[in-house]
Amino acid sequence: MVDTAALASKILEGDRRMLARAITLVESRRVDHRETAMLLLEALTRAAPDRQALRIGLSGTPGVGKSTFIESFGLMLTAQGLRVAVLAVDPSSARTGGSILGDKTRMERLSRDPRAFIRPSPSQTHLGGVARRTRDAVALCEAADFDVVLIETVGVGQSETVVAEVSDVFLLLLAPAGGDELQGVKRGIMEVADMILVNKADGDLKAAANRTCADYAGALRLLRRSPQDPEGYPRAMTVSALHDEETAKSQAIAGRQTAVSGLAQVWEAIRALTDWRRDNGHWDTRRAAQARHWFMDEVRQGLLARLNTPEARAALETLGAEVAAGATTPGRAATVLLHDHLPQNAKANG
Amino acid sequence: MVDTAALASKILEGDRRMLARAITLVESRRVDHRETAMLLLEALTRAAPDRQALRIGLSGTPGVGKSTFIESFGLMLTAQGLRVAVLAVDPSSARTGGSILGDKTRMERLSRDPRAFIRPSPSQTHLGGVARRTRDAVALCEAADFDVVLIETVGVGQSETVVAEVSDVFLLLLAPAGGDELQGVKRGIMEVADMILVNKADGDLKAAANRTCADYAGALRLLRRSPQDPEGYPRAMTVSALHDEETAKSQAIAGRQTAVSGLAQVWEAIRALTDWRRDNGHWDTRRAAQARHWFMDEVRQGLLARLNTPEARAALETLGAEVAAGATTPGRAATVLLHDHLPQNAKANG
Repeated sequence: MVDTAALASKILEGDRRMLARAITLVESRRVDHRETAMLLLEALTRAAPDRQALRIGLSGTPGVGKSTFIESFGLMLTAQGLRVAVLAVDPSSARTGGSILGDKTRMERLSRDPRAFIRPSPSQTHLGGVARRTRDAVALCEAADFDVVLIETVGVGQSETVVAEVSDVFLLLLAPAGGDELQGVKRGIMEVADMILVNKADGDLKAAANRTCADYAGALRLLRRSPQDPEGYPRAMTVSALHDEETAKSQAIAGRQTAVSGLAQVWEAIRALTDWRRDNGHWDTRRAAQARHWFMDEVRQGLLARLNTPEARAALETLGAEVAAGATTPGRAATVLLHDHLPQNAKANG
Repeated sequence: MVDTAALASKILEGDRRMLARAITLVESRRVDHRETAMLLLEALTRAAPDRQALRIGLSGTPGVGKSTFIESFGLMLTAQGLRVAVLAVDPSSARTGGSILGDKTRMERLSRDPRAFIRPSPSQTHLGGVARRTRDAVALCEAADFDVVLIETVGVGQSETVVAEVSDVFLLLLAPAGGDELQGVKRGIMEVADMILVNKADGDLKAAANRTCADYAGALRLLRRSPQDPEGYPRAMTVSALHDEETAKSQAIAGRQTAVSGLAQVWEAIRALTDWRRDNGHWDTRRAAQARHWFMDEVRQGLLARLNTPEARAALETLGAEVAAGATTPGRAATVLLHDHLPQNAKANG
């Protein structure tokens, strides 16, 4: 039995071990754990309703340098005195094609930084579950008073859409592509990206990165600007994993090989975007819209859960196959399913 | 009381007056009409399970020339002996900014063509309703043995997504844009478009149309190709509303001023895409996936309808506002709502 009040107060104090434990709790599928998690989140919401982190979603295909980017970006922020939480994808749990090493190794320096908290999370394969887990983990990090929460996604299924719906800013990290070998952005990502970052803009790849960046900048200009975006957004920028002189020096001291240049510009662009949204009232309306979205999402999940009986699942399967085969209509099949497996609520008129 | 069997047999014979009446029926919100519509659609599905039209979705902002395109494209197809149904947006019912004239006037020649059927439908503002109405109207046109069903959408809300989910091919019609005055495609449309057609590629606008087309072609190349797409798709093309020599001649005879050149190429490109999908099994899997999607959509709508009581609607409003204000969590709010307004099904374990 978890003492919710004690756990909540530890999290509010920024206790990282308790934060980790709470995230494990929200990730659990056990019904009693979920009930405890709900109580915990409510206690935290009541205790610290105004704690808000800047939530940054980050997507990118494997090999594009996400870990290096997150580590360098995180270190830059902690060096400014900011507290940074990273909800990372656990590479060992997913077929991400990424590193087979654990995240502690993936982001070794950041993980030793007292202002940082890195949490590798299970792969994002179960969509319904991911949405709730991701959202709850972000809420826990906010309650623990982090200034920035970085949420990594690996582009499986609709995980970007989920992460975008929980983020204030969504970044897409890309590798430079030469001429015809454009990697191709998964459809649907370009429309949620606030900023596209072309990585590895250095050495032999620099020209290709600049071209790729120009291509995406051009493509973004073809999209209608959202009223939540200031002039020039969504935007494309280049970043570089190569040591620039300054970082190379500090790395020589630290004995490390990784750095990303252009990060200060990325941070500045993020700040410019979020400041503009705050100044124009979009920050609050966006957060409120996201909260309503998650509420309706939970309602829908809860309704679908009423059909979570062996009989109803079998009927969903059978009727779905009949509809797909053209043997019945979607409307009739749904009517039959609901009639047989969800007894009519006497009060409802639907 | 509608005689469903009689109505069905008339529709199967291609009776356009009865088809129009049936579409009115599926568009009705009356509960008894909806039940009759469901019976009718089932009867038609059973009677002619194999009738399939080529369903073409068409989106484009007002003023881009959609009516002219549809009329010319439709006339080209009927001249080939094809039967063409057009589910058009009724301009008088929506703030589309389009023509204030009725559709009969918008597409006068096509409406007089015995192989064509034009149906202006109410504006697409109610999303749930639009999905069902559009899908059912398409099914009716297929049962009436049309070869091609053109489904127009005006880009309000998520209507494109709905239309794309009911279409085999989705076209986006754009106007040429010069330099900085790019019109901007609504986010989310580029990802459902199979073909982008830049209209008015003639006279003074020809150069601008070619540049615009090249811009969109470039942007489409940045998107990852779907396994359902052959090489070169999604693609961008130009079309022209100016008379080319051939159409000018026939128009001179008909005494008409509208024509679109490049339509034969558009039709060829549509056929190449759909032939490829049929040959590679994607046509059937896509249709089956769409059917399953609509089934699950109906199930979700049916579940939400259980919350369609004055009390539940009020609770949704109140709880939604509390969640948006950060006073409670989405999970708790949903739990409260479902507990209070949807009594637990004894059989379910959710």
